[in-house]
Amino acid sequence: MINVAILGFGVVGSGVGEVIVMNNAKLAKALGDDITVKYIFDKREFPNTPWQDKVVHDIDVIMNDPEVSVVVECMGGAHPAYDFSMDAIKKGKSVITSNKEVVAKFGHELLAAARENGVGYLFEASVGGGTPVIRPLVKCLVANEIDSVCGILNGTTNYILTMMNKYSESFETALASAQEKGYAERDPSDDINGIDTCRKICILADIAFGYGMDSTKVYAEGITAIRNKDVALAEKLGSSIKLLGRARKEGDKVSVMVAPFIVSRERVIAGIDDVFNAVAFNGNAVGEVTLCGRGAGMLPTASAMVADIIDVVNNGAWNVSWCNPAETPADVLMTPDEVEDKYYVAFAVADNGAAIENVISDARLLSTGDGETAIETPKMPYGELKNKLATLEKNGIKAVSVIRIF
Amino acid sequence: MINVAILGFGVVGSGVGEVIVMNNAKLAKALGDDITVKYIFDKREFPNTPWQDKVVHDIDVIMNDPEVSVVVECMGGAHPAYDFSMDAIKKGKSVITSNKEVVAKFGHELLAAARENGVGYLFEASVGGGTPVIRPLVKCLVANEIDSVCGILNGTTNYILTMMNKYSESFETALASAQEKGYAERDPSDDINGIDTCRKICILADIAFGYGMDSTKVYAEGITAIRNKDVALAEKLGSSIKLLGRARKEGDKVSVMVAPFIVSRERVIAGIDDVFNAVAFNGNAVGEVTLCGRGAGMLPTASAMVADIIDVVNNGAWNVSWCNPAETPADVLMTPDEVEDKYYVAFAVADNGAAIENVISDARLLSTGDGETAIETPKMPYGELKNKLATLEKNGIKAVSVIRIF
Repeated sequence: MINVAILGFGVVGSGVGEVIVMNNAKLAKALGDDITVKYIFDKREFPNTPWQDKVVHDIDVIMNDPEVSVVVECMGGAHPAYDFSMDAIKKGKSVITSNKEVVAKFGHELLAAARENGVGYLFEASVGGGTPVIRPLVKCLVANEIDSVCGILNGTTNYILTMMNKYSESFETALASAQEKGYAERDPSDDINGIDTCRKICILADIAFGYGMDSTKVYAEGITAIRNKDVALAEKLGSSIKLLGRARKEGDKVSVMVAPFIVSRERVIAGIDDVFNAVAFNGNAVGEVTLCGRGAGMLPTASAMVADIIDVVNNGAWNVSWCNPAETPADVLMTPDEVEDKYYVAFAVADNGAAIENVISDARLLSTGDGETAIETPKMPYGELKNKLATLEKNGIKAVSVIRIF
Repeated sequence: MINVAILGFGVVGSGVGEVIVMNNAKLAKALGDDITVKYIFDKREFPNTPWQDKVVHDIDVIMNDPEVSVVVECMGGAHPAYDFSMDAIKKGKSVITSNKEVVAKFGHELLAAARENGVGYLFEASVGGGTPVIRPLVKCLVANEIDSVCGILNGTTNYILTMMNKYSESFETALASAQEKGYAERDPSDDINGIDTCRKICILADIAFGYGMDSTKVYAEGITAIRNKDVALAEKLGSSIKLLGRARKEGDKVSVMVAPFIVSRERVIAGIDDVFNAVAFNGNAVGEVTLCGRGAGMLPTASAMVADIIDVVNNGAWNVSWCNPAETPADVLMTPDEVEDKYYVAFAVADNGAAIENVISDARLLSTGDGETAIETPKMPYGELKNKLATLEKNGIKAVSVIRIF
C-alpha cells in the first residue's frame, strides 16, 4: 500500500484526492500496488465528506508516520510549504509539489536535500499545470542543447487576453470574468503583473541552460497596459497578443524575460487560447517542440502530480539536476536594456510617420488615424528604443503603447 | 564508456551518429560517462568519413561484443530488423528503435523478451519522430484514463496537404516536391495510403487502451482521393484537411482508423503544417494535451533515439506494458461501418440540395455550383452513409468526394 499525505486541501489538493479515488484501479495497475490518501493536512475539517477522517492539524503526525512515503505539497506560498517540504525530505519522504514559488526560490536547496536523502523532489505541475513540460524537457530533449524556451505559462492572463481578443472585452471586464470562473485569485496581481509567469520561465531556464536564475531579478512586464486598440490591431495583422515567458541563449549570456508579445498566427502558440498553456522548446537536434494543455485547474494539475507520485514510487528517487544559484555568475543574465527585439509602438499623434521615421529609421507604418500612429521598429536593444522614444517625446510625439514582436 | 552500435546508417542512423558527436559533452554530463559509437552495421563502407573504421558487415561482431550495451536499430522494414533486435535483447543488450513496422508487428514479443532479459526496448522515435509522444503518454498522463488519441503522424502527407492548401498545388506536384526534398520515399505508397499512420496510431492505441491491435485489420484511408476543390472548400469553411490517425474508446469497444479529416482551425492540430506532426491525447483528468514537433528527418528522429539511449543507461531497463494481441478479443475493434462521424460529401450535380435532403435529412448545404453540390451530414455510422450514397447514386446523384469532419 502506497500511503500519501496531502498538505493543503484547496483546489489542487482536493483534485489530487479526487484523481486517486477516480482512477484508483488504473493507478494500482501502474504501481503494482494499492494507493490511498492516508492524511490531509489542512486548517479546515471537511465534515460529511469521505475525507473527514483523514484530516490532521498537526504536521508531525505525518512527518513521524513511516508509512507515509510520499508527501504532496499543495499549500501555495513560500512558507510553511518550503519548511514542511524540507522536513519531509529529511524524514526520507519524497515530495511532489505544484508550488512554483517554492520551486523558483528554493528548488536548488530542496533538490540537493532530496539527493542527499535518497528521495525524489518532483514538480512537473509547477509549470504548465497538466501540460507535460519538465519531464519532456529533461527526459525527451536531453540529447539537445536547448537554444530557447518560450511559452504561455499563465492561464489567467491568457484567458483575459483571449476575452479581449475574441469578444473585445475590456481588461477589467475580462479580469472580473476570470475571477468569477475561479481562474484568477482574489488578489490577481502575481498573475497580471507577470510574476507567476516569471517564476515558471525561471524554472525552465534553470533546467534548460544549467544556470540558477534569481526570478526576482528577471524583467517581468504584465498585461495591465494592453489596450483593446492594441489587441484589435494585432488581430488585423494576423497576430495575437500573448503574455510570454522567454529564455534564450545569446552567446555566453542568456536573456530571460516576461512580457506581452505580438505573435503571428503562423506560430502554434498564437492559437493557444483561454486557460490553455503552451511551451515551445528549441533544441539543436530536434528543432521546435511545442507542448500544449490546461495550465491550471483542479484535475489537470492533479493529473501531473499523481503522475509524479507514480514515477517516484516506480522509478525510485530521480531528481532534476539544477545549478546552484551561488555558482551562477551574476552577469550571465542580460539586462532588459541589452535584449534585442522588434517592437510595435503606438504614438498619440495621427499621421506623423515622417517625424517618427526621422528618429526610428526603417520603421514600418502599421496604421494611422483615430489620433494614433502605430509602427513596427527594426530589431534593436530595448535600451536603444527607450532613448529614441524619449527623443520623440521631447518633440511632442508620445508613445502610448510598446509591445514586443515575437 | 557507453558503447553503442548503430544498425543501418541511412538518414536516421547517421543522424544518431551525428547527435552523439555534436552534443557529446552534454550527453556525457547527462550520462555521467562518455558515450561513443563503436560499430556501424551497414552494407556500405563510408570511406573517407570519420565512420569508416567502425563499419562491420558481420552482425555477430556486434552481438558477441559484451562492451556493446545498447543497439540502435535504424534499418527499416520488418526483417532482419526484428531478428537482429530479438538477438540483441537475448544477448542482454538494450535496443532502441525508430522502426514503427517492427514495433507495430512485434512490439509485444520484443517487449516481453526485453523484460525477461532485464534490458530495455524503447521506441519513442517510432511515433512522431522527434516529438515527445510515447514517454509523455506513459509517464506524464499515467494518472488518466485515456479516452482518445488522435494525431497527424506522417510528415510526408502533411507536407503534401499543406502544399495543396497553401499553394493550390496538385497532389502529384506536391508529392514530387516531397520526394525532391527527401521527405517521401521513392515508393511513397505506405505514406500516401495511410499505412505508416496506421502503424503509429495502433502503437499509441495499444499503449493508451491496453489492447493489442493488429494494424493490418485497422481501416486506413490515404490522401490520394483528396482534390484541390475539397481543400479549397475546407479553407473557405475555416478548416484544414489533415490525415489523422484516430483511436477512441466507445463504451466497451474501441474505434481505430486512419482517414483524412476536415479539422476546424479552432483546434491546434489544424494549424500544424509542413512535415510537423502533432498528437492530441484526451485524458479524464487532464483534458486535452497536444504535443507538436518534427515528425521525421535526420536530427529530430535521432534526438528522440539518443534520449532513449540515455534513459535506458541512466534508469535501467524500463519497458512499456503492452497487451498480448492474442489476449485481445477480436470484436473489441469496431468495424469501420459502425463508427460514427459527420461527413463532408460532394456530389457531381449542381443545385440538387432538395433531392439530397430527401435521402440525407438534416444535411447542411456547404456550397453549390460549378457542377457540384457539397453538404455536411449529421453524425451517422459510416455504413449508414454508404447506404444513403448508394440510394442517391441510383437516382443519378453521385458522390465524388467523402471526407470525415473532425
